[in-house]
This record gives sequence, structure tokens and C-alpha cells, in this order.
Amino acid sequence: MNFCSDNTAGAHPKILAALSAANGGPAMPYGNDELTRKVERRIAELFERDCAVFLVGTGTSANALALAALAPNYGAVFCHPESHINMDECGAPEFFTGGAKLVGIQGAHAKIAAADLDRAIKTAGIGVVHHVQPAAVSITQATEAGTVYRPAEIAALAAVAHKHGLTLHMDGARFANALVQVGCMPAEMTWKAGIDALSFGATKNGAFAAEAVVFFDPARAASFGYRRKRAGHLWSKMRFLAAQLDAYLDGGLWLDNARHANRMAAELARGLGAIKAVRLEHPVEANELFVTLPETVIRGLEADGFRFYRWMDETSTTLRLVTSFETDPAHVAAFVTSARRHAAAAA
Amino acid sequence: MNFCSDNTAGAHPKILAALSAANGGPAMPYGNDELTRKVERRIAELFERDCAVFLVGTGTSANALALAALAPNYGAVFCHPESHINMDECGAPEFFTGGAKLVGIQGAHAKIAAADLDRAIKTAGIGVVHHVQPAAVSITQATEAGTVYRPAEIAALAAVAHKHGLTLHMDGARFANALVQVGCMPAEMTWKAGIDALSFGATKNGAFAAEAVVFFDPARAASFGYRRKRAGHLWSKMRFLAAQLDAYLDGGLWLDNARHANRMAAELARGLGAIKAVRLEHPVEANELFVTLPETVIRGLEADGFRFYRWMDETSTTLRLVTSFETDPAHVAAFVTSARRHAAAAA
Amino acid sequence: MNFCSDNTAGAHPKILAALSAANGGPAMPYGNDELTRKVERRIAELFERDCAVFLVGTGTSANALALAALAPNYGAVFCHPESHINMDECGAPEFFTGGAKLVGIQGAHAKIAAADLDRAIKTAGIGVVHHVQPAAVSITQATEAGTVYRPAEIAALAAVAHKHGLTLHMDGARFANALVQVGCMPAEMTWKAGIDALSFGATKNGAFAAEAVVFFDPARAASFGYRRKRAGHLWSKMRFLAAQLDAYLDGGLWLDNARHANRMAAELARGLGAIKAVRLEHPVEANELFVTLPETVIRGLEADGFRFYRWMDETSTTLRLVTSFETDPAHVAAFVTSARRHAAAAA
Amino acid sequence: MNFCSDNTAGAHPKILAALSAANGGPAMPYGNDELTRKVERRIAELFERDCAVFLVGTGTSANALALAALAPNYGAVFCHPESHINMDECGAPEFFTGGAKLVGIQGAHAKIAAADLDRAIKTAGIGVVHHVQPAAVSITQATEAGTVYRPAEIAALAAVAHKHGLTLHMDGARFANALVQVGCMPAEMTWKAGIDALSFGATKNGAFAAEAVVFFDPARAASFGYRRKRAGHLWSKMRFLAAQLDAYLDGGLWLDNARHANRMAAELARGLGAIKAVRLEHPVEANELFVTLPETVIRGLEADGFRFYRWMDETSTTLRLVTSFETDPAHVAAFVTSARRHAAAAA
Repeated sequence: MNFCSDNTAGAHPKILAALSAANGGPAMPYGNDELTRKVERRIAELFERDCAVFLVGTGTSANALALAALAPNYGAVFCHPESHINMDECGAPEFFTGGAKLVGIQGAHAKIAAADLDRAIKTAGIGVVHHVQPAAVSITQATEAGTVYRPAEIAALAAVAHKHGLTLHMDGARFANALVQVGCMPAEMTWKAGIDALSFGATKNGAFAAEAVVFFDPARAASFGYRRKRAGHLWSKMRFLAAQLDAYLDGGLWLDNARHANRMAAELARGLGAIKAVRLEHPVEANELFVTLPETVIRGLEADGFRFYRWMDETSTTLRLVTSFETDPAHVAAFVTSARRHAAAAA
Repeated sequence: MNFCSDNTAGAHPKILAALSAANGGPAMPYGNDELTRKVERRIAELFERDCAVFLVGTGTSANALALAALAPNYGAVFCHPESHINMDECGAPEFFTGGAKLVGIQGAHAKIAAADLDRAIKTAGIGVVHHVQPAAVSITQATEAGTVYRPAEIAALAAVAHKHGLTLHMDGARFANALVQVGCMPAEMTWKAGIDALSFGATKNGAFAAEAVVFFDPARAASFGYRRKRAGHLWSKMRFLAAQLDAYLDGGLWLDNARHANRMAAELARGLGAIKAVRLEHPVEANELFVTLPETVIRGLEADGFRFYRWMDETSTTLRLVTSFETDPAHVAAFVTSARRHAAAAA
Repeated sequence: MNFCSDNTAGAHPKILAALSAANGGPAMPYGNDELTRKVERRIAELFERDCAVFLVGTGTSANALALAALAPNYGAVFCHPESHINMDECGAPEFFTGGAKLVGIQGAHAKIAAADLDRAIKTAGIGVVHHVQPAAVSITQATEAGTVYRPAEIAALAAVAHKHGLTLHMDGARFANALVQVGCMPAEMTWKAGIDALSFGATKNGAFAAEAVVFFDPARAASFGYRRKRAGHLWSKMRFLAAQLDAYLDGGLWLDNARHANRMAAELARGLGAIKAVRLEHPVEANELFVTLPETVIRGLEADGFRFYRWMDETSTTLRLVTSFETDPAHVAAFVTSARRHAAAAA
Repeated sequence: MNFCSDNTAGAHPKILAALSAANGGPAMPYGNDELTRKVERRIAELFERDCAVFLVGTGTSANALALAALAPNYGAVFCHPESHINMDECGAPEFFTGGAKLVGIQGAHAKIAAADLDRAIKTAGIGVVHHVQPAAVSITQATEAGTVYRPAEIAALAAVAHKHGLTLHMDGARFANALVQVGCMPAEMTWKAGIDALSFGATKNGAFAAEAVVFFDPARAASFGYRRKRAGHLWSKMRFLAAQLDAYLDGGLWLDNARHANRMAAELARGLGAIKAVRLEHPVEANELFVTLPETVIRGLEADGFRFYRWMDETSTTLRLVTSFETDPAHVAAFVTSARRHAAAAA
């Protein structure tokens, strides 16, 4: 009964099956195979636009490679201080960009507000050689707090970014979870709202290691192929990366997976929200919850065999609970029951 | 009938099957799972030594991360000019090391001789601030010419490297092919001969995306975990990387695969070597051949449906032919027959 | 009547004279000359300790090279958010370290408190591969707010840093100004208080382009010579860098210069502090003042021919006033008179 | 009697005098002063073109910053293997570019031939992600062998570079020496022949630390200001850098200095060339000679008090002799006399 992360889930059976299906006979390596070409086109069609699409195996590489294409080494990348790129990638964006600086912009529920972004860019010293130069903005969708940007919010951020000549990147490690929550088309949540580059995640939502970087203006992607190779992220047997994404999109598997994960999170939120001693820290809009509980309840849950992370440190009484495409509804019910029981005992 | 590369092969069915087997229930991410721990230990046992073992998905990342742990940014890494790290990784070693310099040392059949290495290091200006500082040596096993270093040759190189305070890295993208050719133990071809770090390849020999970096002195690996994460090469669902290597080693699959590939190459060499118009450019000691043929024969082979690369450019009449674990003996026979036929017609 | 910066000052005549004196006949280049050797020894003697001393031409290079020797590319460097290394060097520390991350720690008057440092390091995730690894702390002396750390404050920070295995760097661009204010020995303000590396500034205090990087444990400096050359900061005619520092130290010129600059700042503070409409933002402990005045007073000062920066942006009514070794007491008096007059007119 | 390098010379008295002249009163820092602006314009006028001009203190920084503006981190920079950027800058170009690769092209007398360049670029794999991408060519003028490219030779290299979309950089550490040898206008030896960026050296020819980077198409320089600052090469008291270059150009001092140095080298060549046991390794076209002499003659010269470097290692009997603006004709005569005497004794 593991709520630590959507990364503790395995891969969806259909995605594993796609590997076997891709395994007949030789295929040209390094992305020069039919399947990779097909998936690149398929993702472009999904976004209803001529895109440059690049497959990679991990979310960190997707983000860092995208940012390296958008920001020079003397650039500044604006992001929320709690964003994955700033907190959880051991400095990958700095490494891939050659030392660009991530500049944090605070905001409630891990979201950046357009007015705050505008102020940050304006005071950053554009054109002044002493200061790193504003180059890009990166937002996470769904955010690290389990919240979701609406297209109008994204459009407002994009308007600010573009007004100052910056580009807008979206870390979509949980893109599907956000999309089914908003209920719009992929294009509406990305380029139609002003997104320039997207890390389109699949690993957390059913693949075992597959992400795509999508540039909505292919001209921005001119250097990407070299950067990907140079960073060791060009798979030789690329068809096995492509096969995952192909199955991921087939028959809407990705949306079904995300809907299930979100539903499990919503159910957890409903159940826990009804317990007096429990406080939800953020709106639950995707597949993550942040809940504060009495220490005795947390210990009770641990004793009952539930696994999760205390957030952000091991003495905290705020838990992060993450659901996934394979979260068992029975585990959700059991978690709520356990929490309720321990809370009652503590009262 | 594809002889372009061992990368055109798919994955071995047993390796794909291992993925499914690894897919039951949750597992802690980022290498904190049982299977990854098991495989790390297993590889250490294979090498009969306490090693630091790190799994990654690509050969380029294995090499570049290993070199980044061995050489500072002001360092020099000695290698053969035709080595993969120098020619075919789009500057990955330079990227990961922060700009160390690869210094080429010529040698017949893509091998470096100990005396040449000694001379190169001695004249490189150790301790002189104007010059990048000799830090590491990297050899490829089997080499890019399809030849193999014997343990005594490796030991001679290691003696030179160590005498001057350098470390010795082995790019073992085709380690298995070299090993079965030499017929020794993994330890004898590595640390017992003086290798400090090994890129232990599996992708070319039956995995779909799996390599291990092995440091024979774990103290050298202190920074590796951070570098791997920072480079986006730490898989979140690491068990799927571990499962490949586990199956790879099970029951000697890796050695069987390599033996088959080598046998196919030997058969090609035997067949082609008997044709008068054909010249073998290098001894055939692993799973690659470099053969020079008349242009008309090459065109005939192409017309007969064989695929391969001209080496090193598209007007060359030297072909690189690579066999793999799944090369069909019938294709080998057909290739020889076709070449013989076209050669006879040309004579 | 320029109070923009101590960088608007020229060079002290004695320092220029030293260049001519150093100009007789040939000298070995790149620091292999007598004068450079002498100055390196002299600085070590000044600090009463066997030090590794390296001369460079700019403060940014001194800081960034020092940090590159102290922090790996996956490292974190803790500093005040307003510190010069974080705000005013266009990402030099990130560039020289290969992408280490500067982590800001807030604190009043641009100083870091030991307890805040301890908390920041403890929660940074030491040993966790997802996070950049705490490697160094950098403080500025005198600070960007014109305040000064006392040796006991430095010792407290050093104790925290060292407890966690980090090193402590001091950006001493205005080291002399801080030293004369505290009235202690150079050793007491540095290694005796736990400083591991110092950027020993001279440019702002009378040289035209000269700084020294001092490592109090020479073992930490093993890579520095290569890094300096590789960054283009090893002067070929090094004697002209050495000559500046030699004259700087001769007869206590550096201390006299700093005393004058501090005295001018103190006089400005006294004069302005007596005006009701003026607010001093920070204690005035070195050669910088931050004063808030009515907009009309600022305009009046501008009209009277005074030059200064509004802090931190051009609409601010807080001014930064900087004095130097060559600030004319008459200008200071004139500034106070002008401010008083415009304040009276506005009242 | 030092022939080790033109870097063993001091600074020209007129250049030192210019520092004092520049030292009256405050000046805005970081290049925002009158004198810097004047010198930037003056250099543009010298080259008869609207140029982007940037002052820095060292030749290595000039080269590496220029190359960083011309080549991406996945780029290849073609140069002679013996070039200063490849051999003597401890990897500065790799550092500043973020890991671009220097690719050596052999050529007699340290010069690259256009046909060889063409071949190298053609076979480098343009557009192939496995290979670093040809981005720039760098030539040294005068070369490391003391030879000089004629404008027509430069034009031929530029035609090849530009045909393939590469830019052409000139390391002009000894630009003046080459110019007076060729006897043409600065424009003819640079942009009129196709040079895109020039490191315009002054340090070796009479300044103490001053170089300019000149981009003949200012659009290529968009990032340079940030890169210079970020690398610590933006002097705060920039007027002292500008003053050197101003005096350098005043009244043709730079040309006079170069003529003297070249004349001294020519005299050495004439004198030594007349000795039977001496072999000149390269044409003497600037201020460097490479001469091979019997070991006993070398020892005799050393015993007579002459200093020089054996080339390229300390057991070599080839000497590099460098003259400068302040080489004493009497030392030249004495050197020839000494060599003749020892050669006669040995015969």
C-alpha cells in the first residue's frame, strides 16, 4: 500500500506488450526507424500542429535538454522555488545549460502568478552585463503541489514572458493528469496558450521510461538533436522508446490512466477531508495530496503498512500522497479507514 | 539482411520477458528497489570484487559519466583517434567533464600501444599550467576495428597509466564479444589487468537499453550518483533497467549471445577472405569486419538487399559489417554467396 | 562629485609608480618572476601562515575561481541573496564551477546568521542524489550593505559550515575597509575565524586591476593554477599584477586608503543622519551608505551635480553612496549641505 | 639576454605613461567611460568598418571568448594542432565554449592549407548527430612557427569556411608582426580577406595586459558582453585597459614596435643562417625563429648567459628564439657571435 510516488508503480501491461510487438527483425538505430518516425508524427498530430518531437527516457533529461535549447549559459530561467527543476534534479538544468541560473518566484500552491513574473523579469536587469539575462520561464503542469494551471492562467504567463522576449516551457511530467482535470485539448493547454516547449511525460503515468520533448516552433529545436546525443540520451534501439509512447497514446490509454489516478486522489481527499484532525494543504486537482495529520495518526498509518513521504523533511507531519494508474481503490479506502480510526483514537 | 550495426538487432526475448516479470506491484524508485540492489551485487560478484556499480540506459552516458568521474575539466583523456568517445558521441566526454580534452594516440587496428601512450603522457606537460593535465586513458574492448586487447596488453597500458598517476577506463560496449574471444574471466580482463573503470555494455548484445558502469575501487565513484542524476540518467523506474541486466547475466545468456555474434563474424570473414578481390582490413576478433571490395561487388550486394555502412564515408569501398546475437546464419551464407558471385562477374 | 562606486576612483599614484619601477629589463612570464614570488610570500606573511596565493586581475574572477576550487559542479554554495556572487557577476560562479547552484540565505543588513545557515544546510538533502550537495558558504566582507562581520560572527558561521563538511569563502572585495573597522589582524578576520579561502581585493581600494586569492590550506589549491590559466586569468606579464599588490601593501597604503574611505562614509552618515527626512537603511561600517530620501531631495542632489545609484532600481528613493580612497572631504561636505538644503526646502 | 618569449619584455614607456594620464578624477566603471568608448571607436576606424570591439586583459581570454561566441558546445573548431588555442591555453576554448572540440589540421610551418580544411570539414559529418558540428576555423597570425599568412591565403581559407557555413577566427596575438611583414592594411588582412573575428593582441608587443576582440559583423557579438562579464574579464576600472590600447595605436607605436621585433628576428636569422651547423626550421617572417643547433653549441650559448626554450621538450636541440619591441640589437649580435664561436669550436 504504497503512496510514495507515481514512480513506484510499474509499467502498464499494454506498454510492455508493445515492446514485444516492436521486437520483430532489424530496425535502423538512433531514431531512424519507422516506429520512431510514426510516433513523432503522432505526437505532432495530437497537438494539431507541425512540431519538433524528440523522445528521451527520463523526465529530468526532457526538462534539462529543453531548457538548454531555450536559455544561453548566461541566461536566467524563472520558475517556482519548489519546482522539480529547481529542487529535485541535482542541478540538471544548470549542467545542461552550462550554468544558467534558476530564479525562484514564490506563489501559492506551487503556481506562479503573471504579475509576479512580470515584476521579476522587469527587475532582473535586461541588457545589463552584470546580471544573468532573462531567457525562459518554466512552469510545472500539474504542479509539485498537485494543482493545475488553467489555459487562461498559462496564457497570462505566456503573454508576460513573450512581451519580454522570453520563452515558456512546461514541465509536463504529469501532463495527462492536468489535462483530464481541465478537460481541454492538448493544444489548448500548450501552444494555443503560448507554451513554446513541453516535456510530455509518460513514465509516471504507465510507461517504464519514456518522455517526449515537443517544440511547437520547430525552429527552436535546431540544436536539440546534437544536445540529446551529446548528453547520452539518444537511444540506439530507439524503437523501444517509441513503442512505449505509441501504446501510451493508443486508444486513449494515457487519458484513462490519468483519470484513474486523479479519481483515486480525489477519493483520498474526500475521505481524509471528512476527518476533523486532517488538513489539506492544497486543492487536489491531479494525483497528489498534501495533508497534515497528527503525529499519532501518521504513526498509526505507518504501523498499518502504508508507505508515503513526510513533506519536506522527516519530522514533518505533512504527508505527500501520490496515486497512480495502478492505485488499488481498496488501498485508498483502507488508508482513509486507517486514518479515521487513528484520528478517533487520538481525539 | 542488415549488417549495419549490432544496434539494428532487437532485444533478446528473455530480456523482454524479464521486464514483465519485474512488473508486479510497487517498487521504490530511483534504484532503491530490491532488483537493482541485487543486480549491483551480481555484477560485483561477476567481477569477483567489491565494486561500485551504476546502471544507465546508454553507452554514451556510461562512458561520459565514467570519464567525468576520472578526469577534471582541465584534464586530458588519452584514447585512440577512432574511438567511439572521440568520434561518435558528439562530444559527450567534453560535455560531462566540463571541457576536458581527448588526446588521440594512433595505433594499428584501433589499438593503443603502451610505448606510444608512455610517450604521449611524458610530452604532455604534467604540472605545466599551460597544458591540460593527463588524467585518464580510455580503451575500447572490443575496439572500433573489431580487434581485441589481450589481458597482457591491457596490463602494459595500465602500468604506463598508473606510473604517471592516470586511471584506465575501458569502453566495454562489446565487452562480451571480447571476453569470449579471449576466453578469460571478467576479472582478468579488467581490474586484474589494471582497469579502474568499465562501461559494461549490454545494449548491443541483447538488451534494449542497459549498461553498467563499474568502478573497481569504489572510492573513485563518490561523485557518480550525483553526476548520473544531474545528467538525467537515473531512471525513476529503475527496476526495468535492472531486469534487463539480470536476464542478461542469467544462465550465461550474455556469453551465448556474444559467441553467436562472433561466430557469425568469423564465418563472414572466412567466406569473404576466400574471395580474391576482397581484402580484410583488420583481424576479425569480435563481431565486426572491415572489408574492402570492388565497387561493382558492393553495388551488387546492395542490389541483392544487403544493408551495411561504407567506412568512413559514403564513397569508400571499405565496408563495415557487424553481426549480432540474432544474426541469421542464412544471411551470412547469402552474403558470402552474393559477394562471390558479383566478384566472379567482375573478374 | 561621484558617489556611484569605489570603482569610479582611479589608481593610487604609488601603485602606478610601482608599475614603472617593475618595468626594467626582462622578467620570466606567467608568474615565474621574482616580483610575483615576492608578493605571494608577502601576502602569506601578512596572514601569518603558509598560504597558497594566486594573483588575478578582477574580483569576479577571484570569487568564481575560488568557488570552483571549493565546490563540485553538483554542489550548492550558500550565500546571501544580495551577495555580489549571486547578483552582480552574470553567473560567473555557475560558469566556473560547471553549474553549481547558489542557494540564498536571507539575513538582515546583507549578513547571514549562523542559525539560518545551519537550518539551510540541514534541510538541503546531504547525500540525497536528487539535490545539489552542500559544498561551500560564501560571505562578503564588508557586505553589500556596507556592514561588517565580526570575527566571532565569522567563527560561528565557520563552525556550522565545517560541522557539515563545507568550506567557508570570503569575498573580500572590501576586505581592507572591514579590517580597519574591526581593528583586528588579517589572520583574526580570516583563518583564525575559520575562513578557508579569501578573495583579497585591491582594485576598489587603490589598485587598477589586482586581487589575490588566498587558500589558507594550500592543499585546497591544487587545481587552482590550471583553472586560472584555463579561464584566461594568468597574466603573461605577471610582474605588473604583482607590482600593484606590492605597492598596495607597502607602508600600510592599503590600510590608509581604507581608513580614508571609511572616514568619508562615516562623515556622510553623520551629516545625513542629522537630517530629519533622511533614513539610513543599514549601519555604516565600511565605505558604503544606503540612505532613503524624499524624491525632491534626490532631484536636488542630481541637479547640484552629484552622481550616485538609486538602489535597487531607478525609481527607488534609496540611494547607495560609496566613498573611496580618493573621495574629497569637500565633496562629502557639499553633499551633506546640498541634502540639507533640499530637505529644508521640501519641509 | 633573454630570447624566451616576447612576454619577457616589459611594457613600452609610452603605454605606462598613458596610465598616469588616464588617472585624473573619477570615471564610470565597466567600460562606461569616455576613454573606453574612444578606443573602441578608434579600433573600428583602424579596421575601416563598423565593428564590435571588446577589450580584455589576456590573449587566452580573447581567443576563448571569441570562440565561445562563434561555436556552440556541440561544435567543432578547426585549427592547426600546434596552435596556441590547442596547445597552450590549458583547454580554455573547451571551457569557454562548454566543451566544443578542437580538431587539428596538420600543415607545414604551422599553417593550414585551404584544401586540407575543405577535406576536414567535408568528412566531419555535418548534420549527423553523432559528430560534433563544424562551427568555426581558427588560424594564428603570425603563426606559432613564426610564419605569416598572406591575405590571399586567408581568403582561400575563408572561402572554404564560409562555403560550409563556418566562421573564421584569427588569433592575432602577434597581429602587428604579421601586418608589418605583409605590408598591407589591417582591413586587408582581416575582414576583406574573410576574417569574422579577430583577437587583436597588444600585450606581446608593448602593452602590459591588453587585447581587443573585434567582430567584423557586430551581430555576432550579441552575447559577448555577457560572456566577458561572466568570465571575470570585464575590468571595473576599464580606462586602464583602454589607455594601453590608446597609446599602443598612437603615432603608430604598435607598428614601430613590431618592425623592431621583426628586424631583430631577421638579423638573428641572417646571422645564424650563415653558420653551417645551424638549420632554420621555418621561414622567419615575424619575430620568432626555430633553429636546430648542435647540443654543444646550445650549451655554449647557455653558458654565455643566453636564455631560450628548447622546442618542444627539454631534450630537443631545436630552439625557439623570440624577439620583442625591446630586444637589444647588441644582444642579437652577441647571440650570433656566441653561436658562431661555439659552432667553430665544435667543428
